Amino acid sequence: MAKELKELTSREENYSQWYNDLVVKADLAENSAVRGCMVIKPYGYAIWEKMQRQLDDMFKETGHVNAYFPLFIPKSFLSKEADHVEGFAKECAVVTHYRLKNDPNGSGVVVDPEAKLDEELIVRPTSETIIWSTYKNWIQSYRDLPILCNQWANVVRWEMRTRLFLRTAEFLWQEGHTAHATEAEALEEARKMLEVYAQFAEEYMALPVVKGVKSANERFAGAVETFCIEAMMQDGKALQAGTSHFLGQNFAKAFDVQFVNKENKLDYVWATSWGVSTRLIGALIMAHSDNNGLVLPPKLAPFQVVIVPIYKNEEQLSLISDKVRALMAELKTLGVSVKYDDSDNKKPGWKFAEYELKGVPVRLAMGARDLENGTVELMRRDTLEKETISFDGIAQHIKQLLDDIQKNIYTKALNFRTSVTREVNSYEEFKVELEKGGFLSAHWDGTPETEERIKAETKATIRCLPLDGDLTPGVCMVTGKPSARRVLFARSY
Amino acid sequence: MAKELKELTSREENYSQWYNDLVVKADLAENSAVRGCMVIKPYGYAIWEKMQRQLDDMFKETGHVNAYFPLFIPKSFLSKEADHVEGFAKECAVVTHYRLKNDPNGSGVVVDPEAKLDEELIVRPTSETIIWSTYKNWIQSYRDLPILCNQWANVVRWEMRTRLFLRTAEFLWQEGHTAHATEAEALEEARKMLEVYAQFAEEYMALPVVKGVKSANERFAGAVETFCIEAMMQDGKALQAGTSHFLGQNFAKAFDVQFVNKENKLDYVWATSWGVSTRLIGALIMAHSDNNGLVLPPKLAPFQVVIVPIYKNEEQLSLISDKVRALMAELKTLGVSVKYDDSDNKKPGWKFAEYELKGVPVRLAMGARDLENGTVELMRRDTLEKETISFDGIAQHIKQLLDDIQKNIYTKALNFRTSVTREVNSYEEFKVELEKGGFLSAHWDGTPETEERIKAETKATIRCLPLDGDLTPGVCMVTGKPSARRVLFARSY
Repeated sequence: MAKELKELTSREENYSQWYNDLVVKADLAENSAVRGCMVIKPYGYAIWEKMQRQLDDMFKETGHVNAYFPLFIPKSFLSKEADHVEGFAKECAVVTHYRLKNDPNGSGVVVDPEAKLDEELIVRPTSETIIWSTYKNWIQSYRDLPILCNQWANVVRWEMRTRLFLRTAEFLWQEGHTAHATEAEALEEARKMLEVYAQFAEEYMALPVVKGVKSANERFAGAVETFCIEAMMQDGKALQAGTSHFLGQNFAKAFDVQFVNKENKLDYVWATSWGVSTRLIGALIMAHSDNNGLVLPPKLAPFQVVIVPIYKNEEQLSLISDKVRALMAELKTLGVSVKYDDSDNKKPGWKFAEYELKGVPVRLAMGARDLENGTVELMRRDTLEKETISFDGIAQHIKQLLDDIQKNIYTKALNFRTSVTREVNSYEEFKVELEKGGFLSAHWDGTPETEERIKAETKATIRCLPLDGDLTPGVCMVTGKPSARRVLFARSY
Repeated sequence: MAKELKELTSREENYSQWYNDLVVKADLAENSAVRGCMVIKPYGYAIWEKMQRQLDDMFKETGHVNAYFPLFIPKSFLSKEADHVEGFAKECAVVTHYRLKNDPNGSGVVVDPEAKLDEELIVRPTSETIIWSTYKNWIQSYRDLPILCNQWANVVRWEMRTRLFLRTAEFLWQEGHTAHATEAEALEEARKMLEVYAQFAEEYMALPVVKGVKSANERFAGAVETFCIEAMMQDGKALQAGTSHFLGQNFAKAFDVQFVNKENKLDYVWATSWGVSTRLIGALIMAHSDNNGLVLPPKLAPFQVVIVPIYKNEEQLSLISDKVRALMAELKTLGVSVKYDDSDNKKPGWKFAEYELKGVPVRLAMGARDLENGTVELMRRDTLEKETISFDGIAQHIKQLLDDIQKNIYTKALNFRTSVTREVNSYEEFKVELEKGGFLSAHWDGTPETEERIKAETKATIRCLPLDGDLTPGVCMVTGKPSARRVLFARSY
C-alpha cells in the first residue's frame, strides 16, 4: 500500500482530520498563501466542472440564462435592505484604494495614499444588491418579466475559521436571481429551483436530501422564506447543500424597482435567489468516502474507469495495450470516460492505491495471464469487491456496473440517514440522542427564543421544517407550549 | 424599421459611438453602478459561453486541465519579479480591511478601522505570482513536470478610461500557466497556444489574425518573449486578440521553484502563460458588424436561425407552427440552433429589425402565402439578401448556408485587412498612410527609443514582428540605421 494511504487518518480516529487528509492527499484542494482562500487542484476542479455542466443544463432546461454582474458592490448598496446588511456587512473584503506605488523608503510597493476611493467597494459576498440595482433599469412593464438570470461566480465572505470546500473566504458558486410580476410566480420559481437542487443532489451526487423550509433564525438575510436541501454526513452532522430564497418585494423596495402590471398599475417586482457552491464537493466527500479514500459517484467522477497494465516486458505491454485501446474506443462510444495508466515510473500496486484514494469507480487490471485466458480483473471502488471476468462483453458490463455503483452509493447513504433519523419527545432524550448524531425530529414552540436556547445549550439548530414532514401538532420539548409540527434538528457544518 | 435601429449611429458618422450604441442596443453589455465594471447581459454572455466551450475543448485536446487559484494576491508577491511589479502594481484594487460595522454617527455602515489587514491584498490583475508561489509546492522532480493548468477567472485592472468589452476594470478571461523541465519545451508550449488562439480566431470568430512576436516595449511584464495574434478592425485600427508568453525562468527564480532534472541536478523551472478575454467579444463586433447591427459568425451565434411567423388569425398561426416545429426538430438533428419567435405582442417588422440588430445569421419568415406555395422567405444577415425558396429540403439548405456565411464573413474580413495592409518606405509616407488606418509594414532599427519616438509622434505602435513576415534587411524609416526586417505598425485599441 502506498505511502499516501498509510498516512490517511481513519474516520474513527478523527473524522475531521480524515476529511482534511483526504482533500489534500487526493489532490482535490489545498490551502493557499492567502488566509482562508483555497487552491482548487485539477482533480477537484474536474469534479466541479462536472457539477457545473449538469446544473447549467438543468438551469437552461428550466428557462434560465447566464449573465455576469460586477465583482464589486458600492458600500452604500449593502445598507439599502435592512436585514441584508445585518447578515452580510460584517465580515467582508473591503477595497479602499486603487493604486500601489514604489515604497519611497526602500524596496517593494506600498499603497498610494492619494489613490483612495471616494466610496469603498465590497467584494461581493452575494449579489442581490448589485443585481437589483441593475434590474431597476431593465424592468418597466410586465412585458419585461420574468427575468431568469443565473451567474457563475466567485464570492468572498471573510470567515474566521475556514475548512477546505466547506467554509472558505473565497468560494465558487452559482447564484440565480429572478424577477417576477406576481408573488405566486416567484414562490413557484423558488420551489422549482429547490426541486432542481434536490434532483441534482440525489441523481448526480447520490446524496439523499431533506427538502424543507428554514426557521426565521436560519433564514437568508433579506428573504421572506428560505427553502433548503439538507444532507446527512457520515459523522452524524447535517450539511446545508443548497438554498432557494423567496425574497418577496424586499429588494425591489430597497432599490425602487417598480413595473406597470397588466392592470396598468405600478407595483414592486417579486424576487427569488438561489445558490449552490463548491461546498457541494465537501458534501460529496463526507457523505460517501471511506478510510481508503474517496468514493465518487460515477456521474461526477472525473473519469469513471482506470485501466492498469501489468507486464514484465515491452512485448507484453504492447499486447495488453492493443486490447486496451480497442476497449477504450468501445467504452467511449458508450459514454464511459476512461483513463489508461501505462506510465512506467510507477508500480501497479502504487497505481491501485492511488486510484482507490482518488475514488475512481471502476478499476481494471490486465496482465499476461489475463491475455492468455481472455479475462480481466475488475474492482469496484464502492464495495472494493474484485472479480476476474471475461474480456468479452466487458464494455457493456462496465456500463451497467456504473449504474449499479451510482445506485448503491445512493442507497448506502439513504440507509445511513434513515438509521440516524429518529423522533424524540423530551428535551432530556434530545440531549442524549444528539450526542449520537443524526437528525432528530422534535416538537418546538415556533419561537426564535426557544431555538436560540436549544442552540446555546446543545449546539443543535433547526435544519428545516421538512416539506413532506409530519404535521401532527404536539407540545414543545423545551417549553411545553403548543407545537404546530415536528421539525428537524441536528448539529451541522 | 424599429426605434432601436434608427438610433444606431452609423459607422461613418462616429465609429466609436456606433460601437457603444451597438453593444448596448443589441443587449450585449452595459456599464454598471461600479466605475469601469460592466454587466454582461444574457445575449452577450451567451457569446462568451460559446467561446469558452470551444476554447476549453481546444485546451483539453492539447493536454491542459483546469484549476482555480485565489482571487487575492498578497502585496509582497507582486514585488518579487522586478519587471512584473512595474507592469502590474500601478493600477489595481487593494483590499485593506475585512470588516464593516454600523456607522456610530448615523445610518449605514463604515469600514471598521480595527479590521485592518496586516498585509494588503491585491485583487489579481493576472495570476503568475500566486500560481508560482503554489507551484513551488507541487514541483520537486522532473517527474512532476509538465504542469499544464488553465483557469477561467475574473481579473481587475484599474483602468482610467474604459470601454465595454475592450477595456474594463473587471473582465473575464482564461489564463494558462504551465511549468516545464526544459526551455525548448516551454517555448514549444507558448507557440502551440498561439496556434490554438489563431485557429480559434480564424475558424470560429471568422477573424483573420497576424501571428507575431512583440517588441520589447510591448512585451508582457515579466516575459522573455510575448507572442500575439493581431486583428484589424473596420476603422483601420489594430486589436491585440490574444497573447502567449514565454516566461523563461523569471517566475521560477522569483519564487524559488527548482526541480531535480533527469541528470539529477537542481534547475529552475521554465514557464509560459497565455490568455484571451471578453475583449474578444469587442473584436468580434468591430470586425464584422454593420450599420444595421451585429453580424455574428454562425459558429458563435447564441442561436443561428430565427423563425418569424406572419399570420392574420390563430388558425394560420397554428398551421404555420406545425410546419415550423417539424423544421426545428430537423434542424436540431443537424446541430443547428434555432429560435421560434411566435410572441404575439410584437409585429413581424419589429422582430425583423430586432434579429437583424442582434446578428442572427439566418432569418426565416413564413406566412399564409408561403403555406399555400410550400415556400419560405429566407434572409441571410451577412449580405442581407432575401430569397423565397421551397420548404422542401430547407434544413439541409440552411446547414450549408451557415457554412457559407461563416466563410463569407471571414473572407470579407480578410479582404478588408489585405486592402489596408501595405509596405511603406519612408517616415513621411508612413505618417501620410497612417492617417488612412490599417497595418503598415516598415523597417525599424530595432531600438526601443525609435519605437517610442514613433509612438509619441504618430500614436502608432509596433503590433508585432510577424512570424511569417518579410525577413529582407533594409534601413530604418526613421533613423536610417540598419533594419533586420520589416515589422507591422498600426494605431490600436
